Amino acid sequence: MDLDLSAYSVRTDLALEANEMASSAGSSIPGVHTSNVEHDGIRVSLIDITSQEGSRALGKLPGHYITIEVPALRQKDSDLQNRVATVLAQEFEKFLQKLNISRDAKVLIIGLGNWNVTPDALGPIVVENVMVTRHYFELMPDQVSPGYRAVSAVAPGVLGTTGIETGEIVQGIVDRSKPDLVIAIDALASRSLERVNTTIQIADTGIHPGSGIGSKRKGLTLETLGVPCIAIGVPTVVYASTIVNNAFDMMQNHFRQRTANTEHILGLLDNLKEQERLQLVKEVLNPLGHDLLVTPKEIDQFIEDIANIIASGLNAALHEAVDADNVSAYTH
Amino acid sequence: MDLDLSAYSVRTDLALEANEMASSAGSSIPGVHTSNVEHDGIRVSLIDITSQEGSRALGKLPGHYITIEVPALRQKDSDLQNRVATVLAQEFEKFLQKLNISRDAKVLIIGLGNWNVTPDALGPIVVENVMVTRHYFELMPDQVSPGYRAVSAVAPGVLGTTGIETGEIVQGIVDRSKPDLVIAIDALASRSLERVNTTIQIADTGIHPGSGIGSKRKGLTLETLGVPCIAIGVPTVVYASTIVNNAFDMMQNHFRQRTANTEHILGLLDNLKEQERLQLVKEVLNPLGHDLLVTPKEIDQFIEDIANIIASGLNAALHEAVDADNVSAYTH
Amino acid sequence: MDLDLSAYSVRTDLALEANEMASSAGSSIPGVHTSNVEHDGIRVSLIDITSQEGSRALGKLPGHYITIEVPALRQKDSDLQNRVATVLAQEFEKFLQKLNISRDAKVLIIGLGNWNVTPDALGPIVVENVMVTRHYFELMPDQVSPGYRAVSAVAPGVLGTTGIETGEIVQGIVDRSKPDLVIAIDALASRSLERVNTTIQIADTGIHPGSGIGSKRKGLTLETLGVPCIAIGVPTVVYASTIVNNAFDMMQNHFRQRTANTEHILGLLDNLKEQERLQLVKEVLNPLGHDLLVTPKEIDQFIEDIANIIASGLNAALHEAVDADNVSAYTH
Amino acid sequence: MDLDLSAYSVRTDLALEANEMASSAGSSIPGVHTSNVEHDGIRVSLIDITSQEGSRALGKLPGHYITIEVPALRQKDSDLQNRVATVLAQEFEKFLQKLNISRDAKVLIIGLGNWNVTPDALGPIVVENVMVTRHYFELMPDQVSPGYRAVSAVAPGVLGTTGIETGEIVQGIVDRSKPDLVIAIDALASRSLERVNTTIQIADTGIHPGSGIGSKRKGLTLETLGVPCIAIGVPTVVYASTIVNNAFDMMQNHFRQRTANTEHILGLLDNLKEQERLQLVKEVLNPLGHDLLVTPKEIDQFIEDIANIIASGLNAALHEAVDADNVSAYTH
Repeated sequence: MDLDLSAYSVRTDLALEANEMASSAGSSIPGVHTSNVEHDGIRVSLIDITSQEGSRALGKLPGHYITIEVPALRQKDSDLQNRVATVLAQEFEKFLQKLNISRDAKVLIIGLGNWNVTPDALGPIVVENVMVTRHYFELMPDQVSPGYRAVSAVAPGVLGTTGIETGEIVQGIVDRSKPDLVIAIDALASRSLERVNTTIQIADTGIHPGSGIGSKRKGLTLETLGVPCIAIGVPTVVYASTIVNNAFDMMQNHFRQRTANTEHILGLLDNLKEQERLQLVKEVLNPLGHDLLVTPKEIDQFIEDIANIIASGLNAALHEAVDADNVSAYTH
Repeated sequence: MDLDLSAYSVRTDLALEANEMASSAGSSIPGVHTSNVEHDGIRVSLIDITSQEGSRALGKLPGHYITIEVPALRQKDSDLQNRVATVLAQEFEKFLQKLNISRDAKVLIIGLGNWNVTPDALGPIVVENVMVTRHYFELMPDQVSPGYRAVSAVAPGVLGTTGIETGEIVQGIVDRSKPDLVIAIDALASRSLERVNTTIQIADTGIHPGSGIGSKRKGLTLETLGVPCIAIGVPTVVYASTIVNNAFDMMQNHFRQRTANTEHILGLLDNLKEQERLQLVKEVLNPLGHDLLVTPKEIDQFIEDIANIIASGLNAALHEAVDADNVSAYTH
Repeated sequence: MDLDLSAYSVRTDLALEANEMASSAGSSIPGVHTSNVEHDGIRVSLIDITSQEGSRALGKLPGHYITIEVPALRQKDSDLQNRVATVLAQEFEKFLQKLNISRDAKVLIIGLGNWNVTPDALGPIVVENVMVTRHYFELMPDQVSPGYRAVSAVAPGVLGTTGIETGEIVQGIVDRSKPDLVIAIDALASRSLERVNTTIQIADTGIHPGSGIGSKRKGLTLETLGVPCIAIGVPTVVYASTIVNNAFDMMQNHFRQRTANTEHILGLLDNLKEQERLQLVKEVLNPLGHDLLVTPKEIDQFIEDIANIIASGLNAALHEAVDADNVSAYTH
Repeated sequence: MDLDLSAYSVRTDLALEANEMASSAGSSIPGVHTSNVEHDGIRVSLIDITSQEGSRALGKLPGHYITIEVPALRQKDSDLQNRVATVLAQEFEKFLQKLNISRDAKVLIIGLGNWNVTPDALGPIVVENVMVTRHYFELMPDQVSPGYRAVSAVAPGVLGTTGIETGEIVQGIVDRSKPDLVIAIDALASRSLERVNTTIQIADTGIHPGSGIGSKRKGLTLETLGVPCIAIGVPTVVYASTIVNNAFDMMQNHFRQRTANTEHILGLLDNLKEQERLQLVKEVLNPLGHDLLVTPKEIDQFIEDIANIIASGLNAALHEAVDADNVSAYTH
């Protein structure tokens, strides 16, 4: 076999997955600090990448990452959904404090993605559901109740339907509307089908070219926009090849727990490193049209639910006057 | 009665209607040149306003206006729809030549209005259906076939859902993407229910504050954008008060043709000027919640049909390679 | 003038409007019993038609009619919407008792109308939002919690899209699924723009040919279905001619209150009876395409809101276990 | 390992896949007759199952099966889409003749599945796009042009949203509307990701409990309905476990072609029969929430495209007056 594996890597948009992969060798990674708490089916993990070494090891930019995992989120439990929105609100508020974003910082929410492709519509649906207040501050500043800040929200479309880099559009809007902070919502690709629509990542690193479902060529970052950019992402799709590759791992673990003789468990596959094996899987699946990006059958409902959670969480985190205990009342 | 009619006027977004009203006295208006042709159920009217006097008389900016009227357009006749798209393409091409817009001028199409309000969704639906090519010119200029120009398209949302003046967003996008021409699509309010979804207006005057269905506070014009702006509008709504007021006219005409004695036809209403009468109608309807903006019951289908006509017409007018005789094949 | 007014009548789907018209002479109508209460912006009127004379006078079948009027319902006040749903639930429960419908009577909800025509989509949207339980009773009767009854729900489409009379489809479903009660939800035409999307009518008379927006040729009644049929209707459209005709009334009232001389108020119109005048208005508007059925511009949001109110109200009225004070939690 | 494999089988809704699996041993199966032609990227396979033995071997009912495979169908090629619609029309017409369905047999098209779950919405979208004519035959039989037959179409919903077995609803509608033939459109589960949205199956066996995406408990067959039922199905989803299991096959083939030593290719997996292996994969994936039904990310567009192909094909096949060469002009 002569696979060209140079410059190939198992890409994931989630720092948590990157950390799992990088840590699987067992040793801790210098410059990567992690902690997590779990409460009532909701697990919150913090990953801080503080060194270039840690950044290289994970293939993620230095910065702060929050991951909220809720395995039961696909079960249409509206009580659980409300609790997740509340946790998101609390974590997001703490995150803003950590980043020294002031209570009256003006926020522009950018909903990345394509309205017409359901698994990519997360950003536009969130934008449709957040409370927008900036125009009240502009048009009648004296009449805005205390406890609110100026929030604006735009779904700029995708390159294929606008003909313009999304980054260009966002920069133009930032130039004109002058927010102090951009929050960009995006649908992500996951390495794991179980994380699809059950995981929310928040990061202060902005959006980078090539991340998310749609291919972007220009990032949304402090450097490009001139203001900080917090990214909120949810994995909504996974490659078929990734499903297969993960299944190999699970099979190996399954057999290892059951057989004394750990040789030849998966035959020739045993000798491949993960990246070689994934490359091989792609080689095998691709020509037959088997390596599609896939999403669960129930994606319409899932995306609606998680978009509402994010919108509710943001409304409560961004406006003191919105009660974190009853966040969903403010979305429609 | 002591109505305050100062500063009150019978507003219409259509130059054609403004001209009808201004000309009803019979005399021609200096600085307003009109002509029209009708062919097979499609009437094309040209109005050029060349003087300030004409502008004042019509309440419309100096400029060139094309109006395409197709009374039968609401009858779901797909053959007629194709013919209207072809006429639109031809007229729009001539219009570009008249304005000295070059064949390779880069075009940005702006779909004004709100996705979620059907009669206001004209612009966003057109944007969804036009051929977007700018990214090919940017990413692989050598590979673009001859006969195309760079076209981009954005639906920027409305103030109430973004919190940002639409004009600000468009300016930001123009700054960054640097088109040579902006085409803005907007839903309009008509004075006449019969014009709703049957009339298309093209004007080189851009979009002005207060025109269209949504209230805008900042225009899209050569002055604000730095590049010419052509507006394409379709009336999709009409005020209930306007329907009533028009009906008075029709009743008066009806009676006049049938009675010798033309006194007391509509009693006290006969003595009112049109603007006074409209103001009175509004006074009577408003407190009861009767003066809503209304739209025909079948608006979902109508708006889809006319948006497709405009998208098809623009595709053929903007790209030489798209055949004006079969324009609808390029929209979905 | 030689209008043929024979067999012409001012049709309304609302018993309340029919009663207002019939009572405008001032005298009470034998066999028509009315009462109403208003509380906090919600007016509930009961009309019982107990005689053939009353039925003829109103042009409505003998039966019981409840009308809930909420003029402020178009203002997107979610608190008010919840209160209306609660009132609807309470009134509907009382209505079932009055009709001797037992607590465990099996209910089939029929959502009449066309998904793809927004003002006609009331029924299908309600069907999408009601709690459906019949299959649990069929498949695992032992496991259904107390406080629920068997409810099924179907949106059968309209003649133009199915090719089958809606009445035939419903009869077939009733034959097979054997409910004890049918509740049919339908969008109606109103005489008054102010009632559009602000009024809910409940009647035990079923649905009759020609009522509602779509033209039906076969009714849904005790006679045709073999089980009682309660109709719930909301006016969502109004004829342009009706708007104009109502405006004449309002103008006359307006002038009468302000002028000593009540002659020649509306000139020739003063001498016409209401039906003649409406017929005249239609004659004048129709040839010009001015007599469309129209609906408010914001119909998308209005229909969503009122469909949710009805679904919430029905859920609470039909299932004891659903709390009438928090009905909206059970719809999505 | 002690898997309980009794009563377990690799289920597929496609006779073609069942035949591939059953024939993989190499020998031909008595009572199963197959043939196929391929032209310009469209492969049409006929499978006739004429004996109980063949039926058992394939796990499919005796009957006639047509499969149209178009691997390139996901590439948004509108010319190819038109050709597929034409092939579908031709094959369907021949199929009707083979079954001795007369040219004026009245047809009821049933669109199975759930509007609100995109991969399950095939049936409802087809119903929305077919030409419905039955009401013209009922209401004005003298005025129907020659070349048409009476076609009706209903999307009855799914058990979870109606509370009534779909089979019951369809039987009720058949009882009342008395068609001569039912055509049922359904979304299927495939064994292969490459067949998803690229394959159309036509069968004269009707719909059986448990087939299709939604679980049905009652079939749509000649026996239950009293008239013949032709099923048209398109695979739109696939189990994650099936993707993995197929990948094992592909990996084995891949290695076999490249290694002399065919031992230990996939280690312990080599010794498992396909059904054991699939069961094992399910065992491993399921507890982790990894065995979801998945669909390609672009499902919204795919389902729209293939639904239009089926509607166009049916329109041309059912009405002589509709031109098979330009079938798509009759859908919207």
